[in-house]
This record gives sequence, structure tokens and C-alpha cells, in this order.
Amino acid sequence: MVNPGGPLKTPPSTPLPPRSGSAAGEQTAPRSVAVRPGVSRRSSIPAFEVMRITDEIARRRAGGHDVVSLCAGEPSARAIPGTLKPAGYTGPLGTAPLREAVAGHYREWYDVEIDPATVAITTGSSGAFQLAFLAAFDPGDRVALASPGYPAYRNILTALGVHVVEIPTGPENRYQPTPALLDAAVAEHGDLAGLVIASPANPTGTMLDRAALTALVAWCSLRGVRLVSDEIYHGITFAGDGADHRGVTARELDAEAIVVNSFSKYWGMTGWRLGWAILPDALVGPFEALASNFALSPPAPAQELALSAFSPETYAERDAIVAGFARARQLILDAESSLGWGVAAPSDGAFYYYSELGPQLERFTDSVEYARRLLADADVAVVPGVDFDPVDGSRAVRLSYAAGEPAVAEALDRIIRFQG
Amino acid sequence: MVNPGGPLKTPPSTPLPPRSGSAAGEQTAPRSVAVRPGVSRRSSIPAFEVMRITDEIARRRAGGHDVVSLCAGEPSARAIPGTLKPAGYTGPLGTAPLREAVAGHYREWYDVEIDPATVAITTGSSGAFQLAFLAAFDPGDRVALASPGYPAYRNILTALGVHVVEIPTGPENRYQPTPALLDAAVAEHGDLAGLVIASPANPTGTMLDRAALTALVAWCSLRGVRLVSDEIYHGITFAGDGADHRGVTARELDAEAIVVNSFSKYWGMTGWRLGWAILPDALVGPFEALASNFALSPPAPAQELALSAFSPETYAERDAIVAGFARARQLILDAESSLGWGVAAPSDGAFYYYSELGPQLERFTDSVEYARRLLADADVAVVPGVDFDPVDGSRAVRLSYAAGEPAVAEALDRIIRFQG
Repeated sequence: MVNPGGPLKTPPSTPLPPRSGSAAGEQTAPRSVAVRPGVSRRSSIPAFEVMRITDEIARRRAGGHDVVSLCAGEPSARAIPGTLKPAGYTGPLGTAPLREAVAGHYREWYDVEIDPATVAITTGSSGAFQLAFLAAFDPGDRVALASPGYPAYRNILTALGVHVVEIPTGPENRYQPTPALLDAAVAEHGDLAGLVIASPANPTGTMLDRAALTALVAWCSLRGVRLVSDEIYHGITFAGDGADHRGVTARELDAEAIVVNSFSKYWGMTGWRLGWAILPDALVGPFEALASNFALSPPAPAQELALSAFSPETYAERDAIVAGFARARQLILDAESSLGWGVAAPSDGAFYYYSELGPQLERFTDSVEYARRLLADADVAVVPGVDFDPVDGSRAVRLSYAAGEPAVAEALDRIIRFQG
Repeated sequence: MVNPGGPLKTPPSTPLPPRSGSAAGEQTAPRSVAVRPGVSRRSSIPAFEVMRITDEIARRRAGGHDVVSLCAGEPSARAIPGTLKPAGYTGPLGTAPLREAVAGHYREWYDVEIDPATVAITTGSSGAFQLAFLAAFDPGDRVALASPGYPAYRNILTALGVHVVEIPTGPENRYQPTPALLDAAVAEHGDLAGLVIASPANPTGTMLDRAALTALVAWCSLRGVRLVSDEIYHGITFAGDGADHRGVTARELDAEAIVVNSFSKYWGMTGWRLGWAILPDALVGPFEALASNFALSPPAPAQELALSAFSPETYAERDAIVAGFARARQLILDAESSLGWGVAAPSDGAFYYYSELGPQLERFTDSVEYARRLLADADVAVVPGVDFDPVDGSRAVRLSYAAGEPAVAEALDRIIRFQG
């Protein structure tokens, strides 16, 4: 966890390695031996640590181990009845009926009117982020995001030549950026072109309420800073049933925000790779041009199936799944004193519990070592925080309770026994 | 068409527009009015002209017109029997069984041994190209490609900051790059980091035979130039049944080549968005890191279905479809004298016929106007060459015969009547 009130951390500097392969200038004089072509410098971004752990889990299971995984940010996949139909390309921004259905979802959940022409269906939220970042930011631009945070924001932006300004957050600000933190970041790094926010956030699960989001929108709006709002965990929230209980969409407050969402989490369609973006008017054309070249079209069968996502029956089915997440979450909260860890982020939504390991760090070097030993000795997989926060993540772990109550109960028993 | 023997064309210079939104420097002094955030300069790439025509076709059909379209590079979608299964994330490079099945396909078609660990399953060939370009090339690198050619190569590379060197090709070189053309390009523009080739090519359908491909591989290999070989139309070829009749894969000749392929064309799975890349060893790690951040995983249901792509039954089914393309192609070749156009590219493969309009250009300003009038007056849609060649494409059109014999026959009748 960060030092509350401490100085702004400078993110670790990771200079790009020299390009491999032949040196410049050698090329015009062909030689009689082959010259190995290079690997780009920009591809030297880290892979997701979660993926490495996923491989290790698979190996242990293949070896007969009964591994309980609290790693994946993935609900059990939704069963969708039906038969397969032939599927051709659709338009680069998706089919008209699905774009209209998404606009209807904003009326239903948020009471917000969206022009379907500004809805872009994408290949997962991943497809939306890469095209949004390309459409909104140029190489050399500075874009801020919270640390800890979802590593792909940082890694995609870096690979696209955008300078990432990490905003160190902690319990004192609910692990979310604030105008004061943004002012400090500008003072240290210079003007920003963009700000990426997530509510509920990964890995912390914390949310921005209406007042907090309004303050960020106002800060961005006065400075011409493009807000990118990751809302893929909307609907997976544990705040009761107030007016904003699905989450507050940035689209309601800021017509210049890019809103990103997905069918993966609330709707349990991870493997289908389908998401969407709500675009400001000026970005529709550029985003469409990029999509028509980078992706041609989002997956057509997934678009067909997703048409059923916004029916009363499906909302009810998915809300029942969320109720199961709530019970699994409560198991963790009830076990907090037995776990005896340090400060945990308020788990407002998503299916993540992010906590300092506290006293456990006296026995283990860091959270990577803790996670490694927990898997080796107790067959429980958790994600060390280093994926999400290169600085302070070495002291924290993320538990995903998307695996459900029985898995979480078993994992907690094993963790408590492992800690002795 | 290019002037045979003429000077190398300089591709049209398209300076990036100034970034819209607030000017730099205005930002740190917040004002009381909102500042509109900018649109990136790099997103100012052109959309596919084909997409605009597709919209126009849809409008005309909605208005009761019987439009025959020779526009889309899309075979009729393959019907795949089965029921839907829940689908979660897979690994970022795809499932192990599918990666092994792809390696088996290289044994079956090319008698080439591929390590499945170097096979990356991707979200269509589009997903492969963007990750391959990111993994292999840095901003400022120069990458050559043939003109006319598939516009997304040029547009993706441009958006990623790579300088595109267009190699003007024509009938004298079968619309394919040659070592002499590459030498001339280096003399004019400087050293290259990469070369993108396609065989069969889009829009021309021409192929590189073993000797031509070997010469290009040797040229690249001596200079450390990364070869990217688009082989998505392999198997859709009309050269009989010689040893190389499926196409020659660059992988057989160059372990440093990136080979890109797709389930969209030969296998008729366009809408499922599934392709693959065969990677040189040094690029597997960078490509996987990029994939795990940019895409998470390729579509899972498509991967499951694609496992059946390499059975003897499926090859036979698809070869029968290709036989249908061959008959549709023959209809066009038989009509050449009635059409009375100019020089056409040798249509070795894919399902494209690319031709100068010749005398028709005396009646119409250019191929854009020809295509517009043909659609308006005769309800036949063809693609003007400007999508594929900004310089000479104004004199050529592309006909896709993927629509099949009856559509092609009807279209030819209408075109001949339209020309009068």
C-alpha cells in the first residue's frame, strides 16, 4: 500500500532496450551471410503475470493437484442456447441492431440517451481500448492512470508510443485519481492529453461515486484532457439498489468522454471477445477508419448472441450471478481478521479483493514469493500485485472471487492453514 | 497501370493534419470554459472505400433495387453444424490443440515442419498483422509493399508510425515486388526494415512462384529485412495440381519470415474473426506479450470450430467451393473481349480480377466515376482501384468473383449492356 500523505512516487523508469538484429547502416551493403532481422523496441512490454500463473496452475492440475484458483477475472462462462449459423463480416462498428440495443441499455440502466451512431461494437473491451488510444492520442502524448491499475492500459499505451503517467493511489483516495493528484502529476510531468479511469476498478474493485466522477470530469473538461472511462465491471456492484447502483457512466457527465464496456464480465461472455465503446462525435469517423483497417469487423456470431443481452430475463439471470459474487465476497470480508493481512481496498464492485499482506511480509520476501509458496504448498492461486502496480504491488495480492462461494471458502481455509 | 519501364513513382505525400482541439500550452491554465480534447493525427488514415460502397449497396437494395455485388472479398459463409458452448478466455496465442492442428496443416499442404510453439492464433489475419507489425517494426522504420495492394497494410503501418515505401508494380512484374524494384526503392528512400508480400495478392490475384519468392527471400535475408508474407488466399488458386499448387509458403524458405494466414477465405469463416501467424523464434515472446495486452485471447468458439478445418472432409468441401470460384473466374476471362477493357492482371488465385478500364476511361473521368455510374445505372457494384493504389488505381477496377457463377454471369451481362 502507498504511504498516505507521502510524496508522489516516480514510476520505475524502463528504458527501451536497443533494437536487436543488424545495426543501421549495415544494410545497404548486402553481404554473403544472412543478417537476422530485428525485434521492435516497442514490443518489449511485459506480459500479464496472470498468464504465467495460469500456465503453472494448468501444469499442477495436470500433475494431479487439486488447485483452487482465485486468479482469473473471469466469471463462469454463460451458457447460450442455440445452434451455429454461418457468419460473414459485419460493418466495422458492428451491426445496426446491436448498436441500437446498446443505446437502449443506456436508457434502461442510466436513463441516458445515446445516438446509436456513436456506439462502436468492438472485439472485446481490448479492441475498444487499442482503437480508442490510437484515435485519441499521438506518440509523445501524456496519459495518466491510477496505480495500481489494469496493466494492459499501461502496456498498450506504451507500445503505441504514449507516455504513461502513473498516479499513485491508496486508501486515502480509495485508490482512485483525484483532481489534487492530477494537479500534482501535471506539475511533475507536464500537461496531459488523457486520463484513463476505471470504476469499479481492477485490481481494487473501488468505485468512483457521482461526486468523485463529476470532479474528475470537470478537471478534464477545463483542460481539454480526454477522459477514457472503463466501465466493464458496471452491474457487478455491492452498494444496494440506489439510483447509481449499476455505476455512474461518464457518458452522462461528459460528452467528450470515451466510454468502454464489454459483454465479458456482467454477461459472462469472455471467450466471445465482444465489447463496445461510446464515442464523442468527433471520434466516430477516426475510430471507424481505424476499425476498418485494424479489425475489419467485430466477431459476427458474438454480435448475434449479444442481442439477447439486454432482455429483462437476461438482466435477471445475470443479477442472480452477481448475488453469488456478493456471497463469495462476504466470505472474504468475514475472514479478514483470520487472514490478518494489512489494509485492503474497499471492494465496492467487480469481483476483486485487493489487500496488503501486512504481517505476512515478515515471513515472505514479497507478494510474488507469497503467491508462489501458497500455490506450491497449499494449491491456492492468487495474483501478486506486481502486475497492477510495479512499485507497491510487491506488498499486495489480488483475490478474484469470480470463482464462486465454494472455491472461495476452500481457498480461505487453505490460506489460513498455510499461514499457520 | 504503371508505365512499364517508366520512373519509380513517388507515392502521394499525405502530411498529417494538425491535431485538433486545444493548442499545446493552453492546458496548464484551466479556464472557466470547457476545452475540447483533440483527435489524434495518426488516426487520419483512410477508411476502406469498399465499406462506403457496401453501405450504398444496402441503401439501394432497401430501395428495391436488384443489386449484383462483385465487391466483397468474401466467400459465402461456411455452415458449421453444432450447438453453442460456453466459452472462456484461452491463452493469448490460442489453444494448444488448434496450434498443433495448424502445424499439422503445414505438414499436409507444404511438407514443412512447424513447431506449434511458434504458431500464434489471432483474431483474424487483421489481428496477426497489427501484432506482427508492432513486434517487428518501430516508428520511423521503413517497410515496403507492392502497389496496388491491400490498403490495410499501408494504413495500419502508417497509424503505427512506420514509413510505408510503396513499390509500384505492373504487368511487367506480375504486380509483385522484385529484387530490382527493391534495390530502386532503397536507392530512393533508404534502408528497409521490412517487406510485406501477398501471394495470391489482393487486388490482383497474382502469385509469386517458387523462384520469385526465393529471390525475394534472398534479397531480404542478406539485408536483415523482415519478410511478412500474407498467405490468406493460399488454396484458392487456379494453377492445376502441381507440387506448389496451394501456394509456396515463405516459411519453407525463410525461418525469419512472419507468415500470416486466416480461416476467413479458403475456409469461409470471415465473420468468426480467426487467423494465425507462424513466427520466427525471436518474435514469439514479443508477439505473446503484445497479444496478452492488446487482445487477451482470440475468440474461443471460433477456435473450437476451427479444429475441424484440417480434416480430409473439410479440405474436400472447400476444394469444391474453389472449383466454383474457378468457373466464375472463367466466365470473366471468356468475356474479356466483350468487355473491351485494358490490361488485366493474371488472375492466378484469390477470387479477384483486376483490370485497367482502357477505352472506358474515355467516357468516364476515372474508375471511381465508372463504378458510381455502373451502380447507379446497372445495379452492379465493383470496387474502383483507388483503395488499392492511390496513384494508378483511378484507372482500374477490382471484380470479386467470390459471389459465384450466377452473380458473375448476370453482372457481366449488365456491364456489357451498360457500356453499350
